[in-house]
Amino acid sequence: MQSFRFTAESSGDEVVERDFTVGEVPGVLWSPPSAPDHAPLVLVGHGGGLHKKTPALAARARHAVTTWGFHVAAIDAPGHGDRPRTADDERARAALRQAMDSGDKPGFESAGVRYTASLVERAVPEWQATLDALRALPEFGDSPVGYAGGITLGTAIGVPLTAADPRITAAIFGGGFFAYDALIAAARRITVPVQFLLPWDDEHVSRDSALALFDAFASPEKTLHANPGDHRTIRWTGVDDGFLARHLRA
Amino acid sequence: MQSFRFTAESSGDEVVERDFTVGEVPGVLWSPPSAPDHAPLVLVGHGGGLHKKTPALAARARHAVTTWGFHVAAIDAPGHGDRPRTADDERARAALRQAMDSGDKPGFESAGVRYTASLVERAVPEWQATLDALRALPEFGDSPVGYAGGITLGTAIGVPLTAADPRITAAIFGGGFFAYDALIAAARRITVPVQFLLPWDDEHVSRDSALALFDAFASPEKTLHANPGDHRTIRWTGVDDGFLARHLRA
Repeated sequence: MQSFRFTAESSGDEVVERDFTVGEVPGVLWSPPSAPDHAPLVLVGHGGGLHKKTPALAARARHAVTTWGFHVAAIDAPGHGDRPRTADDERARAALRQAMDSGDKPGFESAGVRYTASLVERAVPEWQATLDALRALPEFGDSPVGYAGGITLGTAIGVPLTAADPRITAAIFGGGFFAYDALIAAARRITVPVQFLLPWDDEHVSRDSALALFDAFASPEKTLHANPGDHRTIRWTGVDDGFLARHLRA
Repeated sequence: MQSFRFTAESSGDEVVERDFTVGEVPGVLWSPPSAPDHAPLVLVGHGGGLHKKTPALAARARHAVTTWGFHVAAIDAPGHGDRPRTADDERARAALRQAMDSGDKPGFESAGVRYTASLVERAVPEWQATLDALRALPEFGDSPVGYAGGITLGTAIGVPLTAADPRITAAIFGGGFFAYDALIAAARRITVPVQFLLPWDDEHVSRDSALALFDAFASPEKTLHANPGDHRTIRWTGVDDGFLARHLRA
């Protein structure tokens, strides 16, 4: 198991925020000030270009702690947040930017798929190591585990992670990226309940790609929620907030 | 205004059920035993081949009465429930059955569109006459009005009704029928909040037809909820039950 340590702690009335590292990977854990042992743990994946404490992600995490009594963990994806980028990462990002600036949609898609696949390949074992480390703590043990990916990179990483790791028993995914063949194949191996969030007017990614991903989940229980909104302006009106609470009862 | 009268009443602890007629059209009104004047009124449309007191519809109506304090009204569609069928209705139904039995998908679609359009043409003014009559009762007056169509015929009627009648300020629609051009055009005139329910695995109607209908609503607030389920086996897991309550506050 990789070395785990808490590196900082700040406590408010409602939420305790603890930074940690697992090997080289920095993470954060939001928890209730007092919780029964083995309370549910939700792993939250941030979007592409963002990081583990992005304000919208942190707000949603705090909501889950205060409303549902969950612990919520986030880690920086490779080359994101506090983590260095490799030369390959820099090249991939430059190619992505260039394709977007020149309006080259097929080029943007293929550069996006290449970069995403490279991040996913590294991020899945990092999340599994994080989960190993957290479940080794007495407060977690065999806590029920959910994954909440929002849209874009958080879902691209979360789909193969959920397919690979039987400890995850419910997952929230979303659209906002190109669902390439390996992701569709991973989705076909997922049977746990899935909630899927789709911004209906995403200007970067075809609706069909997101619908094909939703279609692929083998889960008997899966619900798609679509709302008007573009790639960056997402409104989750009417989304079932109790989804994880229903499925992560201890 | 067409003649309105209550024809029967049965009261339970939680719900008062009153049958009524508006002209020749039979209807039913479910209400709380005591409600403030001008409480919200929800018009509920039944599916094709069903009627105003279909068990699933009646159960949902009673839930809306007991949970939200709404009044709920349903009427039989032309040629449905207690209403006679015209010779044209009989011919249309026979054509539909024959196309389905012979596996003639294009024939089923065109027979379905013809029959649906004929029902819609008659049903929209019947619903408007019903609403005129109910709002003439002191208990309603200017009650906020919503429409809840479920899937199939209830939505095919509800879309042009909601487009035509400004008294309806929120609507629940669904898939399950062929969204022909006139319905898409009506959907484009709808701007009130819409909740849209889609059985993901409908074996009779293409998913694209339902998605095109959802796409057409001009409403700034519209949410699509899709769950696995075929044309007859619909599960509304995770659907936002408070949608009408949010939008029909008096």
